[in-house]
Order: sequence, then C-alpha cells, then structure tokens
Amino acid sequence: MNRYEQRQQWLQAEMIQRGWSGFLVTQNVDIYYYTGSMQTGYLFIPAEGEPLYLVRRSLERAEDEAHAAVEPLGSMKTLKERLAARYPGLLEAGAAAGGLRLATELDVLPVQQFQRLQAALPGAAWEDGSLLVREQRMIKSPDEVAAIRQAASVVDASLEAVIPQIREGMAEFELMALIEHQLRLRGHQGLMRMRAYNSELITGMVAAGASAAVPTYFDGPAGGTGLHPSSPQSSGRALLQRGEPILVDIGCCIDGYLIDQTRTLVIGGLDPELQRAYEVTEQVLRATEARLQPGTISEHLYLLALDQVQEAGLSAHFMGYGADQVKFLGHGIGLEIDELPVLAKGFKYPLAPGMVIAIEPKFTFPGRGVVGIEDTYLITETGYEKLTISREGVIVI
Amino acid sequence: MNRYEQRQQWLQAEMIQRGWSGFLVTQNVDIYYYTGSMQTGYLFIPAEGEPLYLVRRSLERAEDEAHAAVEPLGSMKTLKERLAARYPGLLEAGAAAGGLRLATELDVLPVQQFQRLQAALPGAAWEDGSLLVREQRMIKSPDEVAAIRQAASVVDASLEAVIPQIREGMAEFELMALIEHQLRLRGHQGLMRMRAYNSELITGMVAAGASAAVPTYFDGPAGGTGLHPSSPQSSGRALLQRGEPILVDIGCCIDGYLIDQTRTLVIGGLDPELQRAYEVTEQVLRATEARLQPGTISEHLYLLALDQVQEAGLSAHFMGYGADQVKFLGHGIGLEIDELPVLAKGFKYPLAPGMVIAIEPKFTFPGRGVVGIEDTYLITETGYEKLTISREGVIVI
Repeated sequence: MNRYEQRQQWLQAEMIQRGWSGFLVTQNVDIYYYTGSMQTGYLFIPAEGEPLYLVRRSLERAEDEAHAAVEPLGSMKTLKERLAARYPGLLEAGAAAGGLRLATELDVLPVQQFQRLQAALPGAAWEDGSLLVREQRMIKSPDEVAAIRQAASVVDASLEAVIPQIREGMAEFELMALIEHQLRLRGHQGLMRMRAYNSELITGMVAAGASAAVPTYFDGPAGGTGLHPSSPQSSGRALLQRGEPILVDIGCCIDGYLIDQTRTLVIGGLDPELQRAYEVTEQVLRATEARLQPGTISEHLYLLALDQVQEAGLSAHFMGYGADQVKFLGHGIGLEIDELPVLAKGFKYPLAPGMVIAIEPKFTFPGRGVVGIEDTYLITETGYEKLTISREGVIVI
Repeated sequence: MNRYEQRQQWLQAEMIQRGWSGFLVTQNVDIYYYTGSMQTGYLFIPAEGEPLYLVRRSLERAEDEAHAAVEPLGSMKTLKERLAARYPGLLEAGAAAGGLRLATELDVLPVQQFQRLQAALPGAAWEDGSLLVREQRMIKSPDEVAAIRQAASVVDASLEAVIPQIREGMAEFELMALIEHQLRLRGHQGLMRMRAYNSELITGMVAAGASAAVPTYFDGPAGGTGLHPSSPQSSGRALLQRGEPILVDIGCCIDGYLIDQTRTLVIGGLDPELQRAYEVTEQVLRATEARLQPGTISEHLYLLALDQVQEAGLSAHFMGYGADQVKFLGHGIGLEIDELPVLAKGFKYPLAPGMVIAIEPKFTFPGRGVVGIEDTYLITETGYEKLTISREGVIVI
C-alpha cells in the first residue's frame, strides 16, 4: 500500500468511528496530501470503498499523478447522481441512518462554494472535517520528513551563500532578494502556504534593527515594515546598519514541504543587552529540546519557556512586545506553515513520533530590533532530531 | 474627501439601495481597499455613519495607516454590544425592518469564520456582498492606475535586464529566478494575489517549448510543468532550447497593485507556423484594441477573438488545447489578478472608464510550445491607454 492509500484508509477508519459517510476534500493542499496530485476539483473519500477524484483541470495531469480514480468533474448539477452511481447504496444508507453525513474542510472552504455543495447534495448533513485532517497531517510519514530535511538543507546553503554578500547600507529588501534568488536556484517552489484566512508569507521575515521590531498583523513574533501598507510585513526599505540585529527568519518549499529557520546576524557585534537576550533564546531552545519527546504536552513547552523568560527578566520582550506579543513558542509545519501542534496555551497534544515542529524563541526590543533563533524538529520514538542544520550563535559579519 | 472615504461612501449608497444595514468586510485585500490598511480584523461599514475598523493586530499600525476609526477587536462575544454602542439604533432599526441585513464577502470567507460571525450577531440576515465589492473595485481611481503603471514599468525594466542573460541550456526555473530577482530589486512586493479559492500564482507563467504547453490546473491559457506535482504550474526543470518559444507571462506587485504582461521570446528564431500563430495573436490584440472603449460589452471582445481565430484556422489551439482550453480572452486586474470584468461569454459588463484589463491571446501547440502576447489596458473616456510598455513582436535572442 502506498502512502496515499495509507492516508485515505486512516481517514476512512476515523470516518467510520464518527458515523460519517464520506469526506469531500476541497482544498488544493489536502487533495495533494491524499492523492499526490493538486489539479482543480474535488476528492471524494467514502467511509468505505475507493476514493474518486473529480477533476476540472487538468484531467490529463490528474490521471498521471493521482493515487485515486480520476473522472472529469462535469456539472455540479450531476454530482449527486454520479456519486450515487459510483457508490451504490451510499445515499440510501445515509438516509436510513437519519441523513447522509458528509465532512469537508469548513476552516478553508468559502461560504459560496459550500452553498453550491449543499445545493448539489440536498439532504446531506455537513460535518467540519478540518480538525481531523489537520490532526492527521500533524504526523509526518518518512517521505514527508525527507522533503522537509531537503528544504532545511536548501535554506542552509542559501543562507551561507548570501552571508558573504551582506554589506552595511544594503536595503532589507535587497537582502531578501538575494536570499530568495539563492533559494529559487536550489529548487524552492516559491510558495509558503498558510492555511489561515488572510494569512500570507513572502519567504519569511527578514528585517533589521528598529524596523524588525515594528509589529505586524502576521501571527508571529517578528515584524517588519514591509514595502508598503498593502504588504505590511517583513523586509522594507531600511538600510542595514552596523551593530543592529539582522533577523533572517526564512523558509522554503521543496516537493511541497516547508521548513522554517531563524538566525540572528550582525555586522560588527551586538551590544551586550541584545547579545544576552539572544543567549537566553538559545537557552530556551536547549531547555525545550530537553523535553522534546513523545508524551510531552505541547502547551507545557510554551509554559516552560514563559517561566524561563520571566526568570531572565525578559517577559515584556518575549515573542513580540506589549500589545503585539504573540502567545506561542512554536508550530507544526509541513505542507503549510501553520500546522498542528501549536506550542501554546490550550493546545494539549501529546508530542508523538512523526510530528515536525518549528520552535522560535525571540525577543523584541522596540527601536532596536529582534533577536532569536528558530529550528525545526522531528519528534522521534526516543526524543527528537533537529532537521535544520545551520550554525547556531549570532552570526557575525 | 480622500479616496478611501469615497469608496466607503459609494458602498454606503449601494447598501441603502439594497436595504442592507451594514457591510462587515473580512478579507485583507478588501479591508485595504476601503481603509488603506491591511491589519488583521474586521471593518464594519454601516449603511449610514462612520466605519469602524476592529483590529486584532497590529492596532498601532492600523491607527497609523487606516482612514477609518480604529478600535481593538477584543472578544467576538462582545461584538454585538460594541456595534450596538457605536451605532445606536442599528440593531433596533434592523429588527423593525424585519431583520438586520448585513453583507459580507461570501466568495472568500471560510464557513467556520462565517459561523462565528453568525453566532456573534444572532438574528442578522447575511447577504453576499462579494459581487458588489468586486464590481466597485472594477473601476480604478487615478492612484490605483498610477500604481499599476509603475508595476508595468518595473516588469519592463526587469524583462530587459534579464534578456541579455538568457542562454540555451538554462533551466526554466533559473530564468524565473533571474526575473524574480530583478522584479524584487525594483520593488515587487513578492505577492500575486488571487481571489478564487485554491488559486495561486508564483510570479507568472514562464516556460518554454513542450513544457509550456503542458496543461495546468491554473485557470489560464499557458501551462508549465512546475517543479513538482505540489506546485504544478509555470517553470520546471526543462532546459531552454534553440528555436522553441519561451513564454514570459509575468506580473509584479507595486503598492499592492498588479500588472500582467506576456512576451514571446526565442533563441534563434521560431519556425514559420509558430511565427504565424504569434502574428495572429498580435492581430487579435489589434482588433480587440479597436473595440476597447466605453460601452463595448466585455463578452463581445472574446466572441470577436473567437471569430478571428477561426478564420485563421487556429481554433483548436486558442487559449490552451483540447480539453484544457480556457474560455476567456482577458480579465480585470488590480489588487488581485482575477478581477472583473472577464472577457468571456456570459460577462455582459459594458466597458467603462477606469477599468483595467489584461488581454492575452495565446496559442498552444502540444509538444512545441505556447506563443502569444498580453498587454494590460486602462479604459479611458474615449478609448484606451496601454499600461504595459514592453516592446512587441517575438523577441529574438
């Protein structure tokens, strides 16, 4: 059984437990996860039986790529009769059980498209299957980890290629352009997918000094002015200055999978207060690593970090400043940047082998900059493997 | 009155006509359009009175940027009482009129978030305001046109900077990396926003020869293998060959606004059949330009192109090939790539001053490549102004 069939069957077992008759997968990333193909259409996974990938375009590519039966999508008006023909008894069994219970991803599916599905399948009761999919995707298979490992190596090589080119007076966006060019030459697919509504990321957060500490709408600890209010995050037009922390929080996408890594760079050296704050972020990372093993509850890692930071007297600066602090230490990562588990209060997932988590302790100093580190880890049977490979410590240029 | 207030007031007049009490704007791009700020939260525009921008983060930046009153978003549980406090009589008037009618963007808003709004404002009847917003955004103001004009100049300068670097044997993705680098150095914000669910674009469609003719899920005439099935569009690993058409369909984002332009390049020269097909695309563009004036119905331009293409004996190759043909000639463009009006059957918008439309006649030859041209036009009082400025004709290297 290949990995796609394994994923489909895991979902089917969960659906049977919940009394769901099927899952209509609508999101491009989820369709890719279950089929290996990302063509436009819908993937129907029945609780029992073979999945059906209804494709608008490109049918030809879906047929080449997908680990599922492929048919042209056709008109939505015929969806019901086609499912009925393909799955004899499905609609009747649903009716007998008091209604056909179908799941879909209500966290990403727009209302208009959902209403079209409701009209196409009258009588179906719709369940929100998004948490189930996100929880399934939390545990990575070896092929997924291999792609993430490759992405980590691309990020490291790109960073090292750029470091010798960094100069005082270079604009933040010029540094970002250099980084992106190196990433793309090494196979970065150019996307950093996020699941949450309105969330966007352009390669990462690269900013220096005061402008890195400018808060953003982005749900992360680092900010950045961006080039304009219409993309108010990450690199702007500020020029790199000697002695200020240059935050290089970047990722890349290889075979669909993302990595997330942060390093703090400086031309010359950091002042003692920022240097000490940076060292505390490494200490927080070390202490987190010591608990990074199956069974640890995800929120505990965040609470542990809060304690350490308080002891260091840096609570006001942790993960942003003031009203713009974010309330997490790390996040799952895979096909999307904002995956489960989140290392934050209220997230009680026990860590488990196969989880991949980016951990990113950072301190924000308004007017001065952001310092910190971020590595991405695989949870193993006995502990963890660090997937990011870049050298640690403040990188002095 | 500044442009944001003008936009808000236009929407208010339309809401009064429809009997809507207010519009809860949820999408980042739409919030930017009405306020000049893109921080996280909701913008409430009442049918009468001052808009209120409820911001999660960054409040500080929203206060700096937004042309609207700003308040912290706070808990969704208090949304109703806060609106009631800010707009005395709003909820009562709605109830008296048989229910509070509120609009939001059902084309992009995910179901889960919509359900949260429904719970926060019980008793409200929700209208789909997305078409209204898209129709409003169809007519650009002078500042929007200025940004698009600037984007056109960045695309031209970047293309010209890259042309001398193009070599036989260079991989498609290397060419794309060069283009992106030039665009970013000139201020491209790195995003190509699309409104439709699951739609993504990575700078554009840059591909050559047979691989450009590989169909994609992307709703456009050009294809491309992409680097992997997890991003199955645009540049792949194919190497540029002498004599094959190199399709450079690119855009960039300046001050939030996009441009779209295609040029056909070739190392050496095209074979006569492809050269002739390219010339037909220029003829289609010229014939389209001749009708590009206020009052022309958008679908007529597509039908006119179909006639011309049929006369040229190239119908099977127009805008894709076979089952993967797309059924349009062009599209509105602005903050998003997929704006109104669409030049396609069923779109009966009369052209009007201020519309900005990308027109992209192309022919696909399976196994050989894609040829075509795309320019972006502003509709003026008397006709059109071409915003893209790159040289026409097949660009021979």
